[in-house]
Amino acid sequence: MFQKFFSSSLGVSALWLSSAVLNACGTMAAATPYTVYRGTFIQLPELDSANSTPQLARTQGVLWVSSSDGRIKGYDWKVNDDASFQSWLSSQGWTESDVTVVKSDDERNQFFFPGFIDTHIHAPQYPNEGLFGSSGLLDWLNEYTFPMEARHTPEGLRVYNEVVLKTLAHGTTTASYFATIHVPATNALAALCHKHGQRAFIGRVCMDNKEQCPSYYVDSSADEGFNATKRTIDYIQTLDPNGTLINPIVTPRFAPSCSNHSLTGLGELAASYSPPLRIQTHISENNDEVALVQQLFPDSTSYANVYDTHGLLTNRTILAHAVHLTKDEMTLISERGSKVAHCPASNSALGSGLAPVRFMLDQGVTVGLGTDVAGGYSPSILEVARQASLVSRVVQYSAEYQALTGNKTSDGSEKLLVDEVLYLATRGGAAVVDMPTDIGGFDKGMIWDAQLIELGAVTNSTTSPLDVATLAGRAVETGPVGNVDIFGNETWQEQVQKWMWDGDDRNVKNVWVQGKLVHTRA
Amino acid sequence: MFQKFFSSSLGVSALWLSSAVLNACGTMAAATPYTVYRGTFIQLPELDSANSTPQLARTQGVLWVSSSDGRIKGYDWKVNDDASFQSWLSSQGWTESDVTVVKSDDERNQFFFPGFIDTHIHAPQYPNEGLFGSSGLLDWLNEYTFPMEARHTPEGLRVYNEVVLKTLAHGTTTASYFATIHVPATNALAALCHKHGQRAFIGRVCMDNKEQCPSYYVDSSADEGFNATKRTIDYIQTLDPNGTLINPIVTPRFAPSCSNHSLTGLGELAASYSPPLRIQTHISENNDEVALVQQLFPDSTSYANVYDTHGLLTNRTILAHAVHLTKDEMTLISERGSKVAHCPASNSALGSGLAPVRFMLDQGVTVGLGTDVAGGYSPSILEVARQASLVSRVVQYSAEYQALTGNKTSDGSEKLLVDEVLYLATRGGAAVVDMPTDIGGFDKGMIWDAQLIELGAVTNSTTSPLDVATLAGRAVETGPVGNVDIFGNETWQEQVQKWMWDGDDRNVKNVWVQGKLVHTRA
Repeated sequence: MFQKFFSSSLGVSALWLSSAVLNACGTMAAATPYTVYRGTFIQLPELDSANSTPQLARTQGVLWVSSSDGRIKGYDWKVNDDASFQSWLSSQGWTESDVTVVKSDDERNQFFFPGFIDTHIHAPQYPNEGLFGSSGLLDWLNEYTFPMEARHTPEGLRVYNEVVLKTLAHGTTTASYFATIHVPATNALAALCHKHGQRAFIGRVCMDNKEQCPSYYVDSSADEGFNATKRTIDYIQTLDPNGTLINPIVTPRFAPSCSNHSLTGLGELAASYSPPLRIQTHISENNDEVALVQQLFPDSTSYANVYDTHGLLTNRTILAHAVHLTKDEMTLISERGSKVAHCPASNSALGSGLAPVRFMLDQGVTVGLGTDVAGGYSPSILEVARQASLVSRVVQYSAEYQALTGNKTSDGSEKLLVDEVLYLATRGGAAVVDMPTDIGGFDKGMIWDAQLIELGAVTNSTTSPLDVATLAGRAVETGPVGNVDIFGNETWQEQVQKWMWDGDDRNVKNVWVQGKLVHTRA
Repeated sequence: MFQKFFSSSLGVSALWLSSAVLNACGTMAAATPYTVYRGTFIQLPELDSANSTPQLARTQGVLWVSSSDGRIKGYDWKVNDDASFQSWLSSQGWTESDVTVVKSDDERNQFFFPGFIDTHIHAPQYPNEGLFGSSGLLDWLNEYTFPMEARHTPEGLRVYNEVVLKTLAHGTTTASYFATIHVPATNALAALCHKHGQRAFIGRVCMDNKEQCPSYYVDSSADEGFNATKRTIDYIQTLDPNGTLINPIVTPRFAPSCSNHSLTGLGELAASYSPPLRIQTHISENNDEVALVQQLFPDSTSYANVYDTHGLLTNRTILAHAVHLTKDEMTLISERGSKVAHCPASNSALGSGLAPVRFMLDQGVTVGLGTDVAGGYSPSILEVARQASLVSRVVQYSAEYQALTGNKTSDGSEKLLVDEVLYLATRGGAAVVDMPTDIGGFDKGMIWDAQLIELGAVTNSTTSPLDVATLAGRAVETGPVGNVDIFGNETWQEQVQKWMWDGDDRNVKNVWVQGKLVHTRA
């Protein structure tokens, strides 16, 4: 697709891209210098020594965001009615016309929540969502993935556009994308994220091992791979010089796809920038893959050691999957400060295995969530959060897990509760993409990357069942939204639990990135 | 809830119920003697010696259903355009005014599919969907379930109404319900299913073991349990004398809840009817529960043996969960012709375990799918089908599974493909509720219990990404429906796979039960 399409239309797309730069800057000045968000805010506060377990927190009041940089300038949780709002406005020296006000609606059980962070997603694989038959990782790559990624049709741009819009609609404010080996198409993905206002890390995929990659989809040499990667880095740094929204990420596909020369060179390439560029790759997704790596890198002591000896295990490295790591590998990863993208929907769909997340956390590994589209069948981080919870509840039955933990009887502590998986989806992901003080929460100084979640009104609160003929007869706009049924006697925590288990994109009413509204549900 | 509410308003509700009988008969004569369905039909054909693996089949043409009994009277897969339709009508001796025509829309990727069969669902637990914290089965029963079921408020009827409407909206045309111990409320559930036109088996829950049940929620004696159960059976057989839509089902909660006297008496009660009544209960959901049963029934050789020795293991018995059965128990269940309701969403959510479905099928056990609301977090059988597939892909890692299968290395055959889980959701469920020749497919003579599935038009087929500002700017009605993105180059099988993995109630446009339209998506 991409290669031919973009080569032949480079003039047009270059023109369009520069216009996008002018029009879609994430920090573009709004009509008023501040936007004030009023209502209910739910988030996972930062962990510290006094507060070492993620726990949902709710506050109600006002929070204001500067239109100049999209950051949270302050909040006041005592401003809870119109009178106190007027007093507060006066105390700031503002009138209503000085600010844009966005209110959450309590009647409709709305609340502001931090945007989701997808730490691992393959944009070009999106049309393959749900298509994988009975395959496991390695045959899936050959049967489904490489042909899709290599496809040369004008469809490419349409696919990238769709994946950015879809993930935004599911509340993903930040995504770390794998693209393909094609430079113009990878650059177009960066431009589309920029145009639509999604924060993104864009990786041109490097794969030069001719024995492991298909002949129709492989870098012609390691050096050609470096050059192509540099062209993408240059493009992105021109598109968004301050890296406000879009940043490049060095992306060796995974160890088997790359020569030693390529792995070493990509480590050096990342290190040659200041600050060093982020790196993303895959690790220990599947037992056959782990065996293949042992065979291809006989001098290495482990899969993680392969990356370490090639300078790729940095404190800005995202390692996707990490299903079958040894305890020693977890220790090494923790020592290097590298991070893990947990992709449970994909791991279960491809039968890769049950990742021991609690055990990894206990070894000091930083973990976030990834959809791994299209190994994962859904673009939704909320769906991934559900799967993370489900997997954590059955991992106790895994023989591998029992061996890893010394065959201790489960005390239930391996289970990830709703608060914890939502932490992984927000603060956890922020740490994984090395932006822990910028995104993932509502602290003062953080960037306003957020969603307005709407659960809807209480189910049938006023209508007797005797009067209700069918669902079709129900006024959807005044009732529940999607599949979250609120009966009115739930605590706010239980409402959030219901959202986590039964919510979907219908509950995502608005999405902001860098203070800018980037999605509104029709 | 139910007890008080219904006792005090029995006159009113009895009046309303008899009016429902008159107005909502599933086989009520329509305006025309036949309804003709035109377009695309997808189903899982019946298995036979030549065709032993479920495989999706698509046919296009006409299928006609009698309005008098709601059954399929014939089909013709050569009638594929308006001219052949007119010829076919003439050959039947009909004109267009003699029949009601319902067409599927190819442009919107619509197709008729058999209705889903939920073989295990607890109606009163619906408000607890998604609420279970970190609990496992036994503490979950005490903390969440018994208090919810025992609640005495007028909310009950509202809950039952909601669960019937919700499951219909998700394409569930048949459900096997556990209600509570309360007779009037259980009867009201039957009446609501009848009113809304959902095929249902309604079970008043029996639980008389005072040492295992909470004092606030227990039958006062086994005999009182029998009497109460008989009152429900009588009510249902008056409501729907031919059992066209609604039938009673004898429902001992599970072995630990019941005395020996109760278990024996319920087996005898079921056997005293002709044909014998259906029975439903739980089995081997959780390891602690299995241990408890061993302790409570020391003379029994296994959990399945407890039910067998009490006359409860019949060929009309539905056993929910069956996560931890031994091979001998599977053999016993297969010999008795009892059936299994596989509830993977619940089994993972409560951390009950990974049921070895392929292994059970290989032992000759009949399996269908159950939501197990609210151990399961979703009312959707499509979601359960997804979970069945996911669990089948990771069960190979379970130590228990490895022991059961003799520690053989997985050859991948344990994985349940899309065709197979959709078979379990339709034909499998039909066999589990002992209606294998009536529902679950589109054979001649079967009842028209069906859904019209709509995947929506091809994604952005005509719009350039350069012209698309946001998702909100997209005309939803002319684009994809929900999260199923069709790019236009998929095979029809791949379209069904995408629906299975990413579909939801938005894709359920119409639902029919017994030939009658019972749900239309607004």
